[in-house]
Amino acid sequence: MSYIRFASPGQNLNISHFQHTLEIPVLLNKGLCLAAMFPSNALLLVLGVVHLLFSVSALPFDQGSFLDFGMDANEEGLTMMRDVEDGSAGGAISFPEEIVCPFACICFNMVVQCSDLNLHYIPREIPHDTRLLDLQNNLIVGLGEHDFEGLSNLETLVLENNQISMVHPQAFLPLQKMKKLYISHNLLTAIPKNLPTSLVELRVNDNFIKRIPHGAFAGLDKMNSIEMGRNPIQNSGFAHGAFYGLTLNYLRISEAKLTAVPKDLPDNLHELHLDYNQIKAIELYDLSRYTSLIRLGLGYNKILTIDHGSLAYLYNLRELHLDNNRLSQVPTGLPYMTQLQVVHLHSNNISEIGLNAFCLDNVGAHQAVYSGISLFSNPVKYWEVDPNAFRCIRNQIGIQFGNASK
Amino acid sequence: MSYIRFASPGQNLNISHFQHTLEIPVLLNKGLCLAAMFPSNALLLVLGVVHLLFSVSALPFDQGSFLDFGMDANEEGLTMMRDVEDGSAGGAISFPEEIVCPFACICFNMVVQCSDLNLHYIPREIPHDTRLLDLQNNLIVGLGEHDFEGLSNLETLVLENNQISMVHPQAFLPLQKMKKLYISHNLLTAIPKNLPTSLVELRVNDNFIKRIPHGAFAGLDKMNSIEMGRNPIQNSGFAHGAFYGLTLNYLRISEAKLTAVPKDLPDNLHELHLDYNQIKAIELYDLSRYTSLIRLGLGYNKILTIDHGSLAYLYNLRELHLDNNRLSQVPTGLPYMTQLQVVHLHSNNISEIGLNAFCLDNVGAHQAVYSGISLFSNPVKYWEVDPNAFRCIRNQIGIQFGNASK
Repeated sequence: MSYIRFASPGQNLNISHFQHTLEIPVLLNKGLCLAAMFPSNALLLVLGVVHLLFSVSALPFDQGSFLDFGMDANEEGLTMMRDVEDGSAGGAISFPEEIVCPFACICFNMVVQCSDLNLHYIPREIPHDTRLLDLQNNLIVGLGEHDFEGLSNLETLVLENNQISMVHPQAFLPLQKMKKLYISHNLLTAIPKNLPTSLVELRVNDNFIKRIPHGAFAGLDKMNSIEMGRNPIQNSGFAHGAFYGLTLNYLRISEAKLTAVPKDLPDNLHELHLDYNQIKAIELYDLSRYTSLIRLGLGYNKILTIDHGSLAYLYNLRELHLDNNRLSQVPTGLPYMTQLQVVHLHSNNISEIGLNAFCLDNVGAHQAVYSGISLFSNPVKYWEVDPNAFRCIRNQIGIQFGNASK
Repeated sequence: MSYIRFASPGQNLNISHFQHTLEIPVLLNKGLCLAAMFPSNALLLVLGVVHLLFSVSALPFDQGSFLDFGMDANEEGLTMMRDVEDGSAGGAISFPEEIVCPFACICFNMVVQCSDLNLHYIPREIPHDTRLLDLQNNLIVGLGEHDFEGLSNLETLVLENNQISMVHPQAFLPLQKMKKLYISHNLLTAIPKNLPTSLVELRVNDNFIKRIPHGAFAGLDKMNSIEMGRNPIQNSGFAHGAFYGLTLNYLRISEAKLTAVPKDLPDNLHELHLDYNQIKAIELYDLSRYTSLIRLGLGYNKILTIDHGSLAYLYNLRELHLDNNRLSQVPTGLPYMTQLQVVHLHSNNISEIGLNAFCLDNVGAHQAVYSGISLFSNPVKYWEVDPNAFRCIRNQIGIQFGNASK
């Protein structure tokens, strides 16, 4: 997160913290450097570093001889272990391969696991062939410009459950093969910039993102799924073209602050999950863009009305989850959804089931062929429901009903 | 977590909740079953299930026709989707392969990702060829006897950050190929029983484990690493033979309640991490068992004294982390540790460095060849240290010193 460069005599001490760069003169006295103190968690352990010399011939602050013990690194110099790996630490002790692994991490088979270590920083000695780097459950506060240098083979980066609030705009540049970025449960207020175009899956659940600007995912043409639930985002937080350029299969914006179905999501979505929001109604054109949907999750909202005709656009839909809302009737149009198989309507306020709510008049017509309908926890009196309401439903399947006393 | 079996007329309704089994008579009336209500979170959505019949010929509570929508399952019957996958749902709608995936989960390439979904239960429709099942960040309260049935190909099970307090002793039996179990950040009070013998890695950090009984890991002869930090375990919590039968490479018991180095850990450990405990001293024989250690982490303890000779057993040690303790002097014996390369002594109470603290009298003798020593944040006056104290340290390496004004 922070970089301290120990310069040669007469040069400056350069401390860069994310995008802020301070230039502080170095006091040189008999080969000693009294480094200034900076109020930063990441710097706690390197406060005041004195570099003693034991070789008369070496320069006092020779880059190549600085050891940081993995607590921090200068910008150009790499750590001891990486130096060795690169064969650039002439004359230094050579480490056997097994120990080229950040202290307390487990390195095996191109997987580096550093979870639950109270780390405040990205460790330095990460082998360059690493494919999966697991840093979840630490105390990392940000991602610096050089934190992932050399990790060009990394495919999965797990940063869940840290304290990350800052991501340097160049931080991910070295990760040209990264497919999966899991950065849920952090303190992000924005989608990180310059995500690698190789990215396939992004998890940014449980952060503090309120706004997705135009083109936030531009260029990410391999992206398949995004999870961004548990962020305090409202409908107005999505700029026009927020998802511009994305062809996405799966999107989840659960547990957010949505009061309606967002209108500008990728139009080729197969799965859309908007459960646990504050959606109050489905209006006529709300879903008209999402004709590729196969599964739609709208459970745990406050939906009172679903406009007649609004479901007609979902002619590929197979699963519709509308449970735990405030519906007083079965939405219209279900029998015409020829792919529909599962409908969840439990825990609503439905008090009657019309004879044609689920089935067309003409038995055998091209219509929905349900495999499951849930209706329990509704105030409907099941003994008043005409069994013919379910005449189009095949044998060997069931209907969940019940809680009739409600 | 809970299982409701809808029996044929005249049979009983069998509700098993972990190891508790209740037998409750079923009231049958005109084909309706009024299920009793049970105060269990996991049962919320299946409270009062009524099974209506549309085929005159079918039995009222035919196992094969019960649909649970993935919210719960009976013991023998599998869910709709699994039935289809097994080819056992004769006449039912066939699902295309792409939709054989628990609702809202992402299934791809034998990986099933169901994180951050507010799940209270292990979902049912998990494809049998799944290798990695990711259920982290949910609200799962326990693992039932049949939760993992059919998942004989599962290699990695991620259950981190749930509310798991109960694990049925047979829960993991189907997982004959499971190599990795990540169950950190739950409410466990014990290591789960009957872990698969295929297990290689176990993470149980951040639970409420206070005791490891004799043979808790017996039979796990493939195990490589265990992380069990952030549990409220004291030294007395390890029964004699707690690690019996284990040949472990890596063990971490950080952030626990240890007041000394446990004496009965696996003797072939290469890495042992005991940081962030309350260890007060290293006594003469505390480390005598751990002669294979390559890395030892004892940082962030309260170590005041290290008995003379106690480090002599660590003749393979390369990294020794004693930072952030209460040491008033450099521990004795370091020069004789011929493999030692890195010593962290920063943030202690060391006020002087003896001439022979790190190096033998005889320069060039067979002794430690350090690549790094950290001494900053100690009250030592660096200008009083004889540079010859570091005479055995090679060129091109450094010493971290400093914070001299302390």
